[in-house]
Amino acid sequence: MSLRTCPRFVTLEGGEGAGKSTVLDALVARLRATGAEVVATREPGGTPLAEQIRDLLLDPRHEPPAAETELLLMFAARAQHVRETVLPALERGAWVVSDRFTDASYAYQGAARGGDAGFIAELERRVVGIEPGLTLLLDVPVAIGLERARRRGGVDRIESEQDAFFERVRAGYRARAEAQPRRFRVIDATLPAAEVAAEALRHLQRQIGMAA
Amino acid sequence: MSLRTCPRFVTLEGGEGAGKSTVLDALVARLRATGAEVVATREPGGTPLAEQIRDLLLDPRHEPPAAETELLLMFAARAQHVRETVLPALERGAWVVSDRFTDASYAYQGAARGGDAGFIAELERRVVGIEPGLTLLLDVPVAIGLERARRRGGVDRIESEQDAFFERVRAGYRARAEAQPRRFRVIDATLPAAEVAAEALRHLQRQIGMAA
Repeated sequence: MSLRTCPRFVTLEGGEGAGKSTVLDALVARLRATGAEVVATREPGGTPLAEQIRDLLLDPRHEPPAAETELLLMFAARAQHVRETVLPALERGAWVVSDRFTDASYAYQGAARGGDAGFIAELERRVVGIEPGLTLLLDVPVAIGLERARRRGGVDRIESEQDAFFERVRAGYRARAEAQPRRFRVIDATLPAAEVAAEALRHLQRQIGMAA
Repeated sequence: MSLRTCPRFVTLEGGEGAGKSTVLDALVARLRATGAEVVATREPGGTPLAEQIRDLLLDPRHEPPAAETELLLMFAARAQHVRETVLPALERGAWVVSDRFTDASYAYQGAARGGDAGFIAELERRVVGIEPGLTLLLDVPVAIGLERARRRGGVDRIESEQDAFFERVRAGYRARAEAQPRRFRVIDATLPAAEVAAEALRHLQRQIGMAA
């Protein structure tokens, strides 16, 4: 059983401070300008229950989740997000743009946290079942990204990890992009924000043509 | 890779209104009388984070979890419970008595909700890794159990399922007990509470001898 690729499903991936929010706004505006319905969403989250799971994951107040707990909470939220938000939107012909999706679990819970990639793939196959038609990876050196994120303030539990953790996240993302060149586009996110957005929009334009 | 059996880990299983709380109190009192440390716990729950996952699972206010979401939330809570509460207690020589454990997922998320037993076994092997030395199944016909539970009042999301759901729960539990006769003891929970507790204590006494 392989994953079903959804042409109108676009995801943004990248570490802390990569500039995903700005790019997401640009993509959504461009898609809306075509007259299409667009659902902008995020992970973990994207439904009321999944947002509550997000709160449990990122809140540093209770005891930290074990690695296995974090992985299963991420996929529990994703299972809900896919069924309640992503699939219903795609089925009525809308575009869905998500700030993170399954690739983030390979990078964070897999490459960075040491989770078994085979188990993550099994969870993906069993409870997700779909993959985006286009994934934009905003790639930025860890030091630059973290400085941006910390300037923004209010770091959550995962954002307060050590630099070595984020180096593994970045390497994990880049390895996934290399392994799946048809779906991934890697954008140098050290460029000025306007150039990053322009490049993202060029990739989106090609995807709009393919999904027509 | 098989599960590690823990002789001082005792679990209570059964549907709604089977009388688990009363039996749990009796077991804990008997164990404490031997001078042993005893940790009484429950699932879903048993750590601050796992109790918050329990709240998400049983709270009927937000949208209901999809079957896959419910299954992964249960195992996320269990992964945390095992690592934070059950294993540390067993490792310091304490007894652990839990109101429900992995068998409940085979009965509720598997047999009753239609979840794939092979996937549940994979989750058990990957994120749980242990099984109790003794599991007491309090077996009661669905109509009797539900009447007791509803008399108690304040039904949660799962307790408000239809009768056919609880028939599948009961059948799922009985099938597991038949498949694992070494670990399971089935108790007729239609008997008076004092007799149910006495039978549970007889089984516990044998387990105390074996775990000595």
